[in-house]
Amino acid sequence: MRTTVGIIGAGPAGLLLARLLHNAGIDCVVLENRTRAYVEQRQRAGILEQGTVDALRACGAGGRMDAEGLVHHGIELRFDRRSHRIGFPELADGRSVTVYAQTEVVKDLVALQLAEGPPLLFEARALAVEKPESDHPVVRFTHEGREQILDCDYVVGCDGFHGIARAAVPDDVRRTYERTYPYSWLGILADVPPSCDELIYARGEDGFALHSMRSPTVSRLYLQVPNGTDPADWSDDRIWDELDRRFAVDGDWSLARGPVTSKSVTPMRSYVTEPMRYGRVFLAGDAAHIVPPTGAKGLNLAVSDVRILARAFEHHHRTGSDELLDSYSDLCLRRVWQATRFSYDMTTMLHSQPSESAFDSRVHLARLHRLAASRPAAAELAANYTGLPL
Amino acid sequence: MRTTVGIIGAGPAGLLLARLLHNAGIDCVVLENRTRAYVEQRQRAGILEQGTVDALRACGAGGRMDAEGLVHHGIELRFDRRSHRIGFPELADGRSVTVYAQTEVVKDLVALQLAEGPPLLFEARALAVEKPESDHPVVRFTHEGREQILDCDYVVGCDGFHGIARAAVPDDVRRTYERTYPYSWLGILADVPPSCDELIYARGEDGFALHSMRSPTVSRLYLQVPNGTDPADWSDDRIWDELDRRFAVDGDWSLARGPVTSKSVTPMRSYVTEPMRYGRVFLAGDAAHIVPPTGAKGLNLAVSDVRILARAFEHHHRTGSDELLDSYSDLCLRRVWQATRFSYDMTTMLHSQPSESAFDSRVHLARLHRLAASRPAAAELAANYTGLPL
Repeated sequence: MRTTVGIIGAGPAGLLLARLLHNAGIDCVVLENRTRAYVEQRQRAGILEQGTVDALRACGAGGRMDAEGLVHHGIELRFDRRSHRIGFPELADGRSVTVYAQTEVVKDLVALQLAEGPPLLFEARALAVEKPESDHPVVRFTHEGREQILDCDYVVGCDGFHGIARAAVPDDVRRTYERTYPYSWLGILADVPPSCDELIYARGEDGFALHSMRSPTVSRLYLQVPNGTDPADWSDDRIWDELDRRFAVDGDWSLARGPVTSKSVTPMRSYVTEPMRYGRVFLAGDAAHIVPPTGAKGLNLAVSDVRILARAFEHHHRTGSDELLDSYSDLCLRRVWQATRFSYDMTTMLHSQPSESAFDSRVHLARLHRLAASRPAAAELAANYTGLPL
Repeated sequence: MRTTVGIIGAGPAGLLLARLLHNAGIDCVVLENRTRAYVEQRQRAGILEQGTVDALRACGAGGRMDAEGLVHHGIELRFDRRSHRIGFPELADGRSVTVYAQTEVVKDLVALQLAEGPPLLFEARALAVEKPESDHPVVRFTHEGREQILDCDYVVGCDGFHGIARAAVPDDVRRTYERTYPYSWLGILADVPPSCDELIYARGEDGFALHSMRSPTVSRLYLQVPNGTDPADWSDDRIWDELDRRFAVDGDWSLARGPVTSKSVTPMRSYVTEPMRYGRVFLAGDAAHIVPPTGAKGLNLAVSDVRILARAFEHHHRTGSDELLDSYSDLCLRRVWQATRFSYDMTTMLHSQPSESAFDSRVHLARLHRLAASRPAAAELAANYTGLPL
């Protein structure tokens, strides 16, 4: 098989890139290791920055998002049993975010791709990217029981943290930066309307909790738990009781309970690999960087990577110039490090850890108090949360 | 001896408090362990917040400061061989800072005190504060070779980090928060006009450097060095060469060299003790809290403590009400924790440490890049640097 751009991975990054390239008249092929059902049900992020919303709409994938997505104009911070709202439009030049689950973004993009798009092969397992420095890199993969070759002009690794594309960058070129955190998130889906119209980020005495939602009838809730926690050790009652404690606030508030339909534990990690391009191989999304979910930046970074990359391919397609392809890595990494910084700050400010000194706890609390007292501090949070400009 | 308010320590906190109480018609006595020459020559801070300037002026100690102090409308940040200015008035509601050394503030206040103020005893060594919970706490001290007693209605410990007043707060009441840093500052005074009109905070590859000044003809320069550094190991040439490296920037710049007249090493520490009041004993300034010097907050926090305390004594003197005295500790600690947070952030962002991971270094650099790109981020720095409102 042969194509201009070989894309590994049909998550939001790979699917959106394929869509953008298709719209620009550039042919591509998407190889996805898993089944369609698997990728459409993988629970991940749910907060879309303004720029992500704009991009999905512009490429024709915004119909259901516009109908079903929930526009959010702020978030609530809870600490010291008090509540403080950060309103976005008034602090961040009119911008907002939209709650629309990654599963739904993926479903919309898969449907478009299968209806009008370039080839999308499920259960096509990429084994290696070869000859990254040549004019014709190659993806070796297995599909329908046999090993095959995808000949490309360019390869884009959108195959996530555990993908194989990153290995195309030689060890002596690649630099990696990593930070792990001494806690995980226990996340549940519950069939109950959200108890509040907006997200609530709470720093309780025993740790972090997040109130979020998937739809007007489905709540998404998270609890900070120690690494290695087995979700089976957390009965539904124990989860609800602990959520009550962490969201506790002086004044009227109660968390509505409902049937828990999903329960899982996610570890937290920050990871950046540099460069994001080697020869004719590009990395995008989780293949190049992971952020902890606290700042809701993972999906949005993947989208901004492929928007920048699609623009570069289009520019090359129209003019023959490599200029934008050559600046892809530097341009993306600037955003990546800002999102990494923001996600790290949100995470450390809102979580408590057994190993944390009393001094550090008080500094984190002082940050939250400052956000409640200072317009520039709140505006800086709002700017980062709703997304920095491309 | 007997007085209304016994003040231990003739640093800026003790001297300003004495002046404010004197102006309000409240009698007090200041006991200072050291000689006049010693306290007037102790090299310390040199940046006065707008509120500190206003307070010194209002109490009649602003004459020489207004004549000789240098008003600064911004600072420069250097990193990645580039330079970025943060302008204060446009970001912080017209506020600025004034460069006027602590030694000069102390000289001005000592002169006023000896001319018109309440008693100020040098070489009066406080030994203990007794009966803090009674209506008449007592300071035991030695002066002119014999042990004496100062009977007070209130005692204020302005005797610094190594002072004895803090011990009046019982162990089971006192909470302390502390952080040490794996580096110190090597500071020099040099008889050479400053190479730039403003302060320069530089994050060089090998660590932090600060360009500052004491006057139009005296430069004050600092280098990050490992803890335990002996200033004798740093020849003048070595210091100037290292300063050149850390301030290096693309474009035109050179650091003027001149005779080094003083050389010393200062360790960095964050420390907060709570509460700042126990019974009739109050703590102010370094006796209650220490910040690393990077944010220029130490002297200014001492001044805001005693402004709040003087107001409380005055209110009590006028109305008999304890209300403001009772809220002193909580009100000060709110500011103290904000200054502690800010000083910690400035310090970690600008210093590099051997133990720092590559990830942490990149996050700190991302913070500096963000300050150069974001108006709210820069405004938040400017607000903290020029001083939060009382």
